[in-house]
Amino acid sequence: MALARAVASDAKICLMDEPLSNLDAQLRIKMRQEIYALQRKLGLTLIYVTHDQVEAMTMADHIMVLNDQHVQQIGTPSEIYQNPANDFVAKFFGTPQINILSAKRSQGNSHILNVSSDLEIALDEEVPDENVKIGIRPDDMKVESTESIDANATVKNTEFLGDETIIYATLNSGEDIHVVVPGQVNYRIFQPIKVSADANLMFFDTDGKRMNLSKEAYVHA
Amino acid sequence: MALARAVASDAKICLMDEPLSNLDAQLRIKMRQEIYALQRKLGLTLIYVTHDQVEAMTMADHIMVLNDQHVQQIGTPSEIYQNPANDFVAKFFGTPQINILSAKRSQGNSHILNVSSDLEIALDEEVPDENVKIGIRPDDMKVESTESIDANATVKNTEFLGDETIIYATLNSGEDIHVVVPGQVNYRIFQPIKVSADANLMFFDTDGKRMNLSKEAYVHA
Repeated sequence: MALARAVASDAKICLMDEPLSNLDAQLRIKMRQEIYALQRKLGLTLIYVTHDQVEAMTMADHIMVLNDQHVQQIGTPSEIYQNPANDFVAKFFGTPQINILSAKRSQGNSHILNVSSDLEIALDEEVPDENVKIGIRPDDMKVESTESIDANATVKNTEFLGDETIIYATLNSGEDIHVVVPGQVNYRIFQPIKVSADANLMFFDTDGKRMNLSKEAYVHA
Repeated sequence: MALARAVASDAKICLMDEPLSNLDAQLRIKMRQEIYALQRKLGLTLIYVTHDQVEAMTMADHIMVLNDQHVQQIGTPSEIYQNPANDFVAKFFGTPQINILSAKRSQGNSHILNVSSDLEIALDEEVPDENVKIGIRPDDMKVESTESIDANATVKNTEFLGDETIIYATLNSGEDIHVVVPGQVNYRIFQPIKVSADANLMFFDTDGKRMNLSKEAYVHA
């Protein structure tokens, strides 16, 4: 309706407030493409309010992320996803959600972060804070089935989505993680696994603000 | 509510009719895991009605697909996704939707199916029907950017989803296709590309019924 009114009135800006929230999944995908195509064709500026992060990612030239009356970040979809300003933005974008793990600076070596006893992260620089949160996207983790002596996690559940499988697991430390792997994997519940990550790690301080430490990091068990 | 009633009454079966349809995306994911865990813990049989194919895929031991008052297929999530009985089932499961392309048996060689002039599919057996529909899941297609002479399609639009990108394109024949590739790709609109597929092709007759031709197929441009 808002769009029809804008087209008819030659308006240059159109505000849409969650236009697709009541539609089912398949129709939502079709409609977001239609709206996008129409917006391009008409050269309209759309200000599009949505709680659906996929709509924001796929339709927007620029996204403004709001939370609790404050602007969290403004950027392109790619900037927002790859370089979130804080843990709220990191968690809001991406399905399934990014893993956020608590880590402590090693007492013996200030370049090392420990995620309890399961994962260790060595950095090229000193870790400025004692407590750090680490963000790892579920598709940036690796999983191998292993003998229990190597294992750092156990499987809680798996969800087969057709093109990929989500593995829900608990680290030996007790923290929950989830990992996305392509295709179908059949892990049984309580199966011991070894999880690792070596790319695209993000670091946040205890208030959730992004720390610029990510580039030189790698993780081993 | 239905679940609370079932728990309180010691019922063995509980019927849930689209319980999560009004929740937002993140909450829906959490709730489907909670319901799944509770169902396992209580040993309840849940009959769970949903329009959300992801809920069906991730929660069900067995899925019954209904359309137009008829049972289309009964099977495990993996059977339904990998071996759909007809094109309705193939299209209902999987996001984004499977590509369904029209093909004709070659006049010169009855082992060959042509998807207009763009794609050719050679089979180890004779194609029984003159007209066939081919189903290819978006993540089973390959895309390369190419000089225009090799191209069999042009890019219409791309959607960056964070962990993957959907490429919407039009085959030279005029048929629309979409391809899912990992990570971020930056194709411009109207860029010529070459698409191909060599695995997991599905064949349907003109009524949409599955034809058992898929195993030995491969595609080249």
